[in-house]
Amino acid sequence: MTMDMTFLGTGSAYPSPHRGASALVLRTDGECWLFDCGEGTQTQLMKSQLKAGRITKVFISHLHGDHLFGLPGLLCTVSLNTNPDPQQKLNCVEIYGPRGLRHFLRVTLGLTGSQLLFPYAVHELEPTTDQSPEEGQLSLEATAESGPLHPQEQLGRTISLDISTDSYLLFEDKKFVVKAFRLFHRIPSFGFCVQELDRPGRLKIEVLKELGLKPGPMYGRLKAGESVTLESGRVVEPIEVLEEAIPGRKVCILGDCSSVVSEESLRLCRGADILVHEATLSDENREKAVDHGHSTPTMAAAVAQACCARRLVLYHFSQRYKPCSMQREGDEDNVSELKRQAEEALQGSGVEVTLAEDFLTLPIPLRR
Amino acid sequence: MTMDMTFLGTGSAYPSPHRGASALVLRTDGECWLFDCGEGTQTQLMKSQLKAGRITKVFISHLHGDHLFGLPGLLCTVSLNTNPDPQQKLNCVEIYGPRGLRHFLRVTLGLTGSQLLFPYAVHELEPTTDQSPEEGQLSLEATAESGPLHPQEQLGRTISLDISTDSYLLFEDKKFVVKAFRLFHRIPSFGFCVQELDRPGRLKIEVLKELGLKPGPMYGRLKAGESVTLESGRVVEPIEVLEEAIPGRKVCILGDCSSVVSEESLRLCRGADILVHEATLSDENREKAVDHGHSTPTMAAAVAQACCARRLVLYHFSQRYKPCSMQREGDEDNVSELKRQAEEALQGSGVEVTLAEDFLTLPIPLRR
Repeated sequence: MTMDMTFLGTGSAYPSPHRGASALVLRTDGECWLFDCGEGTQTQLMKSQLKAGRITKVFISHLHGDHLFGLPGLLCTVSLNTNPDPQQKLNCVEIYGPRGLRHFLRVTLGLTGSQLLFPYAVHELEPTTDQSPEEGQLSLEATAESGPLHPQEQLGRTISLDISTDSYLLFEDKKFVVKAFRLFHRIPSFGFCVQELDRPGRLKIEVLKELGLKPGPMYGRLKAGESVTLESGRVVEPIEVLEEAIPGRKVCILGDCSSVVSEESLRLCRGADILVHEATLSDENREKAVDHGHSTPTMAAAVAQACCARRLVLYHFSQRYKPCSMQREGDEDNVSELKRQAEEALQGSGVEVTLAEDFLTLPIPLRR
Repeated sequence: MTMDMTFLGTGSAYPSPHRGASALVLRTDGECWLFDCGEGTQTQLMKSQLKAGRITKVFISHLHGDHLFGLPGLLCTVSLNTNPDPQQKLNCVEIYGPRGLRHFLRVTLGLTGSQLLFPYAVHELEPTTDQSPEEGQLSLEATAESGPLHPQEQLGRTISLDISTDSYLLFEDKKFVVKAFRLFHRIPSFGFCVQELDRPGRLKIEVLKELGLKPGPMYGRLKAGESVTLESGRVVEPIEVLEEAIPGRKVCILGDCSSVVSEESLRLCRGADILVHEATLSDENREKAVDHGHSTPTMAAAVAQACCARRLVLYHFSQRYKPCSMQREGDEDNVSELKRQAEEALQGSGVEVTLAEDFLTLPIPLRR
């Protein structure tokens, strides 16, 4: 199964002609999962090789506008470009994000008279009080949705912190387990951990032949982890005929933060193939960054190192940092310097550092 | 006083890399009035010669997302780029639009924890039931704002239809009278009529000299329309010493519509220097256009002719129409064809037709 990640917006605070507001797509087998959706994401999608109509799930890390203001428009445009085939029941777009997101969508879609051709559901994460300073916490009253559901809205779940794992279980299916974890920011913010499940190794054809097993349903049962009994009465265990399991990949995408709330989050992200972490400002501006609930490259590096990530991808750069391609000699704020700072902090650790740019696509190869 | 108009987005339904969603700026003496604010307007502003920080008033024609989804983000970005000078009291941004707009902004700014450095007020227009089909009318309940005001919100006015003029008086000051009028669309939509007041003509210096009047306060009083009495007892009337008054300019900007609701609106727009009217689809698609509450070039031309506009500017083109600069020979949908259709309908009328494109600036010269 191919898997890759495309950055649609790598700027902080607001979109600019040089850097879109926060949005990235994780793609697996043609299905697109969108992480954050700042204003202009739909236009960035049009400029990319991705298809907005393939978005099946949306994850919103926190409710700041530069991560959210593009969502109502994106849903409307996907709907406008959907073929209204009455024979075909369209899948529900599953949307995950902090408490208040349901209200936000119901009001923005409702007041604008926006009808969608597909259903959507908003699954809300209940923040805890240690995710933000008190002034950043919205009251239950302010975030509670009111009135009837939007005509295309299906009632989503409310997901509370699972104390035993210190994480939020968003969903699990045959391929993935996706969890969220708590970050500290000016308002409640979350990170997402996408864990692909391990898959059985390839069948050892030579061994199967020796056992006298011919291609057929028994191959499938063995691959699925079941033992089978031959006519001779011999029981064949999967471990005898399967190569080593293919370990699942792990992708961790953190929203805006100056820190993770708990050690358990680092454990959850342990061994991530890719850890996407913000680096809004350079190390020289650490105090300002932390004041605003943000991180510097060295802070991001510390998280990557603590969870032994293979690769750290920096994004969410202050708009003062122009993309490398626009950088001119002598420019004061150089985005390459952010990479250098993270690399310096990670020297000898083996963690690779990548600077995200709008439209950068990173393949996430299978672990062999 | 210089006056010009810049189109920031001329596409309908959604923004694309080729055409932004609806937005245009009317600029007078450096002050910017924004008409509609589709998603991406802030980025279009950055690409233009205009300064977002100069926006003092915003007019929203109707609540469809392609005219509105950019407003919360624009306000946030203007604020982020405002110098937080505690000595300087910042002016209130006045926002005019249909009922429901106050609720929209309060929820979008509130849930995203968006603080502004300047105050804003939303003045809501009360639509009437003959502006849209029944299914396009939002209930009072759905549009009523609830909860406390946003911390930077000042309570705006609720503006009802003035039956005697069949229009809404938005405001009048020493330079302008701005009114709104009703359009028919899928949801309540409005047009805006910006009427510059006539200004006194220049002083006839020769005549003043003959009367023995020297430059001083009396000049100002005469120019302001007051009569003055000379030492000799002679009363000088302004009409004796002033050249002909400079007639005010008139700019009419219509939101999405398939028609204007009443004849009075045409009278209000009479003699407009510029009438900006949508032409979403070509005449061949008239039925589809009207079904969706939209107009074709010939329909727009009829409005321009009925109110004897000097210039008709077409905008709000379906995204199927690429900008002229991107048009290739043999392309099926040609935006120039929309201009041709309007011109044909206006043949002999003397009304000039202009196709708006993103970033087109039209000067609006003084009438001489």
